[in-house]
Amino acid sequence: MSADVSSIDPRTGEVVEVVAQETASVSEICEAARTAAAPLEALGRETRAALLEALASALEDSRPRIVEVADRETGLGETRLNGELTRTCYQLRLFASVLTDGGYLEAAIDHAGETAMGPRPDLRRMLVPIGPVAVFGASNFPLAFSVPGGDTASAIAAGCPVVLKAHPSHPATSQLCFEVLTEAARKAGAPEGTFGIVYGQRAGADLVAHPAIRAVGFTGSQGGARALLAIIEQRADPIPFFGELSSLNPVVVTPAAAADRAARIGSEFAASFTLGAGQFCTKPGLAFVPSGPDGDALVAAARAAVAEAEPLVMLNEGIAASYARGTAALGKVLETSSAGSGAASAGFRGNPTLLTTTAADLPPEATEECFGPVAVIARYADEADLFAALGKLPNSLTATIQRAPGETDLPAELTRFLRPLTGRIIYDAYPTGVAVSWAQHHGGPWPATNTQHTSVGATAIRRFLRPVTWQNAPSDLLPPELLDDHNSIPRRVDGRFQPQP
Amino acid sequence: MSADVSSIDPRTGEVVEVVAQETASVSEICEAARTAAAPLEALGRETRAALLEALASALEDSRPRIVEVADRETGLGETRLNGELTRTCYQLRLFASVLTDGGYLEAAIDHAGETAMGPRPDLRRMLVPIGPVAVFGASNFPLAFSVPGGDTASAIAAGCPVVLKAHPSHPATSQLCFEVLTEAARKAGAPEGTFGIVYGQRAGADLVAHPAIRAVGFTGSQGGARALLAIIEQRADPIPFFGELSSLNPVVVTPAAAADRAARIGSEFAASFTLGAGQFCTKPGLAFVPSGPDGDALVAAARAAVAEAEPLVMLNEGIAASYARGTAALGKVLETSSAGSGAASAGFRGNPTLLTTTAADLPPEATEECFGPVAVIARYADEADLFAALGKLPNSLTATIQRAPGETDLPAELTRFLRPLTGRIIYDAYPTGVAVSWAQHHGGPWPATNTQHTSVGATAIRRFLRPVTWQNAPSDLLPPELLDDHNSIPRRVDGRFQPQP
Repeated sequence: MSADVSSIDPRTGEVVEVVAQETASVSEICEAARTAAAPLEALGRETRAALLEALASALEDSRPRIVEVADRETGLGETRLNGELTRTCYQLRLFASVLTDGGYLEAAIDHAGETAMGPRPDLRRMLVPIGPVAVFGASNFPLAFSVPGGDTASAIAAGCPVVLKAHPSHPATSQLCFEVLTEAARKAGAPEGTFGIVYGQRAGADLVAHPAIRAVGFTGSQGGARALLAIIEQRADPIPFFGELSSLNPVVVTPAAAADRAARIGSEFAASFTLGAGQFCTKPGLAFVPSGPDGDALVAAARAAVAEAEPLVMLNEGIAASYARGTAALGKVLETSSAGSGAASAGFRGNPTLLTTTAADLPPEATEECFGPVAVIARYADEADLFAALGKLPNSLTATIQRAPGETDLPAELTRFLRPLTGRIIYDAYPTGVAVSWAQHHGGPWPATNTQHTSVGATAIRRFLRPVTWQNAPSDLLPPELLDDHNSIPRRVDGRFQPQP
Repeated sequence: MSADVSSIDPRTGEVVEVVAQETASVSEICEAARTAAAPLEALGRETRAALLEALASALEDSRPRIVEVADRETGLGETRLNGELTRTCYQLRLFASVLTDGGYLEAAIDHAGETAMGPRPDLRRMLVPIGPVAVFGASNFPLAFSVPGGDTASAIAAGCPVVLKAHPSHPATSQLCFEVLTEAARKAGAPEGTFGIVYGQRAGADLVAHPAIRAVGFTGSQGGARALLAIIEQRADPIPFFGELSSLNPVVVTPAAAADRAARIGSEFAASFTLGAGQFCTKPGLAFVPSGPDGDALVAAARAAVAEAEPLVMLNEGIAASYARGTAALGKVLETSSAGSGAASAGFRGNPTLLTTTAADLPPEATEECFGPVAVIARYADEADLFAALGKLPNSLTATIQRAPGETDLPAELTRFLRPLTGRIIYDAYPTGVAVSWAQHHGGPWPATNTQHTSVGATAIRRFLRPVTWQNAPSDLLPPELLDDHNSIPRRVDGRFQPQP
């Protein structure tokens, strides 16, 4: 199978490279992944940790080339892309430490014995790799949520081969990163088939339908997710789908916070929603600001920051067009408070836009995500007004509360109200910027995600694992982590947690 | 809303009671559950543990009445039902200990600090209740997988109100258990709406569609699961569905095991597949037995055991009819080796049936679950023959390996081959009997279940929880378990596991 894909510079709209992939068929790639599954698991945790370190080092070694290629077809700029590559390598190395730690296995041993419901056999449980995983790259993070991103890192850490669906918005970056990963994996002793890559919508659909694929990691739109879920539903054996879909990311500024630092919040909010041309899943799309002079000052600061902005390069033609449609639709029902002042030049660009309305009149359009550098400020008269409007919000990845120093009553009430709607609650900061760590959660009720798992942070590995219990197993048939005398990982033995020594 | 449901004695086929429920509408019941969610969580772990203990005690107090009513409409017999009630209470108390332990919260704290990818804010993560859960009772366990069963226990433990869909096969037992639970919950200080119950297929569909319901626990057929999944897919916000669906539960007897104890395995296998009239999700439906004299002796012992059996009372008319159809279909493509000898009397009964075939000629019918006291023995000539046939198996909850003492080579190869197909591997024992413990896993790839979670054992609670991360939160807005000085539960702090003191 041969596929030619155009790499387009969004700054100019010109094709800068035709990426020619001479690839195997989707079926051949999936079968190679199936074949790789057992030997990849058999490498063991320590060797897979070394593999992840090797992948990170190989990406670092190719840093100048990766950043150059990614910049040319995403327009994200070298600073951002260098930071994203650093994040990507950090993420790979975090999962190496997750493997070394071993707590992610959730190992548990219940020795045989008598119980109140009768004799219990010897039972030993731990998590094992789910099998080959399909990973759909996202447009907006060509590195950290794409070929070498968090889904890939967590799946490889879990011991699962990965078949990537390259995002059409950055095919050259995808191909380059795939080559770097494949070569590094080979040198590190990983089996052939550990990585595969496919291009195009049809190949993506075939991938999700293929019997060898045992789970899907997806970052994209609700529509895309529903289409893939429909394919999964048609399978003889529907498989788990981990989608990260859409998020409004509301911000609430309390009256006390506005009184404390109106101008600062206004400019910080503008910086947050225009960062990366607003193309983050955590972009704050709607802020509730009190009416009155403090809120006016906040809005004025945000307006001023937006008015100074230039039209921003967006990732591709489709996103730029969708942004133009979205802001036009918002402009019909809301007041356009401020917009960037520069003249639109070549390529795919979006003008930063701030709109205002009142909480009492909050239209449905203002509660839907609009991808790009646009946000709505809704002014509220009092707490009743505020909470009535919050009741109209969809679920989100994040919710942000700006409070005054020491303020507790209203922030507590807001926390109670917003927690059911979100997976991360942020105080006195902004939702853009998602640290990769043990305690991170990047998820939430639909449409934020469709499961109770995270796609960022150490526990993202749980998506690509499933439990197995061995009953009455002879010790020579058990995984080493479940032997009585194994003591390098945290385990639960006869109901009690035992940390690593 | 008023509904009349017939309670039918399967021993006679007669209606023994008309259960009249004067109930609220599905919508009213779901809204009550929604209202109960916050106060149920606010009880805290210790009070919810006491609530679970109180539920167990109340069921124990009503033991004679519950067993009598359940026996009358299930025909399972007092011994089994007393055992099932003991299991049910044990299960409730296990989840009380899970709450006290607190490890299920997966609490993690990452303090603010510098990292290789820049400064990290203070992040604190733990699991919180997902919200009201719909629980569909199963026909075959009127207590342990029904109104007071494992889904209910784990959801209440998690802090989620439960709306039960009563199984039509045991409405009187469902209603009685619901009343016992509701009364005990009230006395223990749980909010109104902690438990709700609905009857009938239409009400079940409405329940799954209701916006207040945040997750579904289901034990039943693949068809039923697909129908409910289709309803979920139509929701504005599709919710998690935890289904336990169908399982063949293959058994492999190695040549050495047959040489070691042919007669014993034959009679034990017959006892396992006819236990409870074969109406267990873990019933072993297909055994691979070597050809030759040892295998012949095994089959002879199984045949003899089956030939002595009488027709067994089945749970309801539909299951008995489906069983008759299933065994008739199997009889057309396989040799009926032995069948129970008693005359079929009144009510809904199924005759124990053993069929035989060869691994080389294994027909597709022999690899599908047939609910009831029927099993197939497939004789294999050699290992090539055996593994070729194992390649035709669907996924299952369990896989069983009977080996000779000390035998390792073939059992190891079988373990490698069978593990991707199952969630529990059993050695030298039988899959019926599922201990409730920390290391248990009752799940597997589709069609065993549709997720990577268990419906039996301590970790079943994970289904009804979702993560939340608090970023940069003032201490007075954090849950107590995430405060720095909290030290009663295991937590991960700055990446290191810290056990409870």
